[in-house]
Amino acid sequence: MQENLPSTLSKELLEELQNAIENLDVAFIKSKIEDELHPADIAALVYELQEEEAHFLLENLSVEVASEVLSELDEDIRKDFFKKLSYEKLAEYINLMDSDDAVDILKELDIQVREEVIATLRDRQKARNIIHLLPYEEGTAGALMAKELIKANINWNIKQCIEEIRRQAEKVEKVYSIYVVDDKNILKGRVSLKKIILSSDDTLIADIYEDEDIVAVESYRTQDEVVEIMQKYDLEAIPVVNVQGKLLGRITIDDIVDVIQERADAERQAMSGLSGDTEEDDSVWQSVKARLPWLIIGMAGGMLAASVTDMLGQPVILLVSVLANFTTLIAGTGGNVGIQSSSVILQSLAHKSVFELSTFQRLFKVLLIALLNGTILGILVLLFCLIFGYEIKVAIVVSAALFSVILLASFTGTLTPLVLNRLGFNPALAAGPFITTANDLIGLAVYFSVARLIYHI
Amino acid sequence: MQENLPSTLSKELLEELQNAIENLDVAFIKSKIEDELHPADIAALVYELQEEEAHFLLENLSVEVASEVLSELDEDIRKDFFKKLSYEKLAEYINLMDSDDAVDILKELDIQVREEVIATLRDRQKARNIIHLLPYEEGTAGALMAKELIKANINWNIKQCIEEIRRQAEKVEKVYSIYVVDDKNILKGRVSLKKIILSSDDTLIADIYEDEDIVAVESYRTQDEVVEIMQKYDLEAIPVVNVQGKLLGRITIDDIVDVIQERADAERQAMSGLSGDTEEDDSVWQSVKARLPWLIIGMAGGMLAASVTDMLGQPVILLVSVLANFTTLIAGTGGNVGIQSSSVILQSLAHKSVFELSTFQRLFKVLLIALLNGTILGILVLLFCLIFGYEIKVAIVVSAALFSVILLASFTGTLTPLVLNRLGFNPALAAGPFITTANDLIGLAVYFSVARLIYHI
Repeated sequence: MQENLPSTLSKELLEELQNAIENLDVAFIKSKIEDELHPADIAALVYELQEEEAHFLLENLSVEVASEVLSELDEDIRKDFFKKLSYEKLAEYINLMDSDDAVDILKELDIQVREEVIATLRDRQKARNIIHLLPYEEGTAGALMAKELIKANINWNIKQCIEEIRRQAEKVEKVYSIYVVDDKNILKGRVSLKKIILSSDDTLIADIYEDEDIVAVESYRTQDEVVEIMQKYDLEAIPVVNVQGKLLGRITIDDIVDVIQERADAERQAMSGLSGDTEEDDSVWQSVKARLPWLIIGMAGGMLAASVTDMLGQPVILLVSVLANFTTLIAGTGGNVGIQSSSVILQSLAHKSVFELSTFQRLFKVLLIALLNGTILGILVLLFCLIFGYEIKVAIVVSAALFSVILLASFTGTLTPLVLNRLGFNPALAAGPFITTANDLIGLAVYFSVARLIYHI
Repeated sequence: MQENLPSTLSKELLEELQNAIENLDVAFIKSKIEDELHPADIAALVYELQEEEAHFLLENLSVEVASEVLSELDEDIRKDFFKKLSYEKLAEYINLMDSDDAVDILKELDIQVREEVIATLRDRQKARNIIHLLPYEEGTAGALMAKELIKANINWNIKQCIEEIRRQAEKVEKVYSIYVVDDKNILKGRVSLKKIILSSDDTLIADIYEDEDIVAVESYRTQDEVVEIMQKYDLEAIPVVNVQGKLLGRITIDDIVDVIQERADAERQAMSGLSGDTEEDDSVWQSVKARLPWLIIGMAGGMLAASVTDMLGQPVILLVSVLANFTTLIAGTGGNVGIQSSSVILQSLAHKSVFELSTFQRLFKVLLIALLNGTILGILVLLFCLIFGYEIKVAIVVSAALFSVILLASFTGTLTPLVLNRLGFNPALAAGPFITTANDLIGLAVYFSVARLIYHI
């Protein structure tokens, strides 16, 4: 037994593998890699190899193991490898994958290649499954589901059900429940494997299946809805039905875990102003490409801020130059308040409830919070200014401007993610450079306006 | 069959329930709530009720359903309800929970109450399980595991194994695999339920169990390690062993999904400068408390920035007042670069690999990326300044300062999360107001220093 597989991966093993590949040592690949490692670990090794090395490794694994490794890899590595293969070879790999993985991978290929591969598949049931799954739109329950599942007719007995399990055993790797359908393939409920084991052979499915507790999703539901439901009911698999209630497939929890993780990663990237799916081990050039767009937008915002300062601020600064000291404080607090507000909305959007606040209730609460925060910080900054020896008029300008900026930034921070979400953009963008830049501009404009009002400029 | 449970929750149902509670209508609670809704949905309703209403509802559910609802609720609501109960009543609820949920809930109670409840538990095996689980430290595999699982001795045959399943069936709600142990309770492997169904009664476990693919974790592993392993190998449950390899318990994927979700929420909050576990439906006062601390820290940073500007910047501004226009651009870009850099490190820390870059490799790459970004943005800003009609000397100051700030912010953004992580803090703090404030200060200091150098002030 390998008690803790990850520790079996090491830099030494990587070096041995690289040596083996250099010496075309296929025996090493069979005995030390294929037989000893989990496909997920082999995939982790592939990431560390040069392209040529990776291809040599993949070509010399059995088709069974290679197809599992290929399912685990990133799209770009897989595509490079597939480019070199014939349709027949490609079809051999696809043939061994679950239908959901197979479809995800086929969608990465050119349409013509895709069609040829499907036509070449040996397992015609698999081909039909794939053709059924291909049209579902990305991000829906239909696109997440696999066709592989075990179902039993409600009129069967346990013996017939076990026969079906035997027949499907090889194709369905993980069986959690047997789904129960009627003659028209309408989902009626489910039976757990535990119950099947504990029932006698002639027990009727109709007598033991659960119809109360079963939760299913329609294929058009969004993946966020599926996540919500599976999380709420602690499910390890969920059946997918069409609008008539016919059983189409099932979604397993490992795919949902991936969705949750990807969503968190996408949110982090949007919040930090990174474009695309960037990682630390990207090349320098990829990293620059991921970072530049938002930096340039931020810089354009900064140039706008310079113009605002030039027009509104210069008359003030020429008269009372110490007022220039507080631009960072005002803009910074505006940014912080805006991000806090949008983050709270992000949290709500991520955990939707049936009983949501209306926009009016939301904004009223935001107003109350902002009034409190604004008053407290306004008083604090007034005291700070006096302690630091600024004159009272300066202190009043700074304090009044800070109060106004906190109010405004609370509203922009609350509304921007709601609007982005409504328009179909990632609302997390509102917690990033976008909202910060907007709040910088608003903050400066408010600050200098307040100053001119109080100084009668 | 309820095809889509969430839609059965509605504002109308909530109102009906509130009316029923007001009229002490227990029949409604039994027929429309207990019999029709999933415990997770009942919990969602509880959140919408006043305290008194919630207690009436919980008291009038059967102990079985109430204990499931209680496991789903937030700590504060549960604690309020428990305060009113006798030890005996409390023990009745705990008695029906899985050992991991029971322990989590008992840990919320005062030690004396906890001890009394454990002493009162009717199921003595449950009491022993709880006593075994209590000492595990929060955040370890031991704290995540439940004792409920089905194990089979390697010398048994299928028939004996099925007898064991029958014996444990009520206590172990979800059975994924049967864990195989030897006479000393050392974990040897596992058998899937599918295999048990497909094997004849006299087949020996020893002949069919899988020993190759089984992955287990030691109880002292961190929950992040458990998440990593279960995600990597797409597991729905993982056995937990002690250092001698003895089987202690198992962790199921629903707990891991919760860990991933909580981690993402905590990261979002740290990145946006929110303290504690804040939600949109917190009270106004709770919301203010969650937001104020980081706003005050940010404000203190802003006052420091004012001092830096006063000391380093005022001589420059008095001479060339347009230089005041660019403080927001410089500070803002510094903040954006810093957050991008820390976010990339956060991503790496969240997806640890065996083959990580060394700190030196990391910093070298950061340097290259920063040089490229800095050069591109520096040239852009130089052109912008000239187009906007600023004199060449001003343009050079701004451009040179921006370049330097991008370099510096890249390093602080990279190093801060690594240092925070090493010190045991949440590294996501480095992508929030903290790093922004620090970069504001660095940015201003660099900017005015460059200005004084070029203007010989």
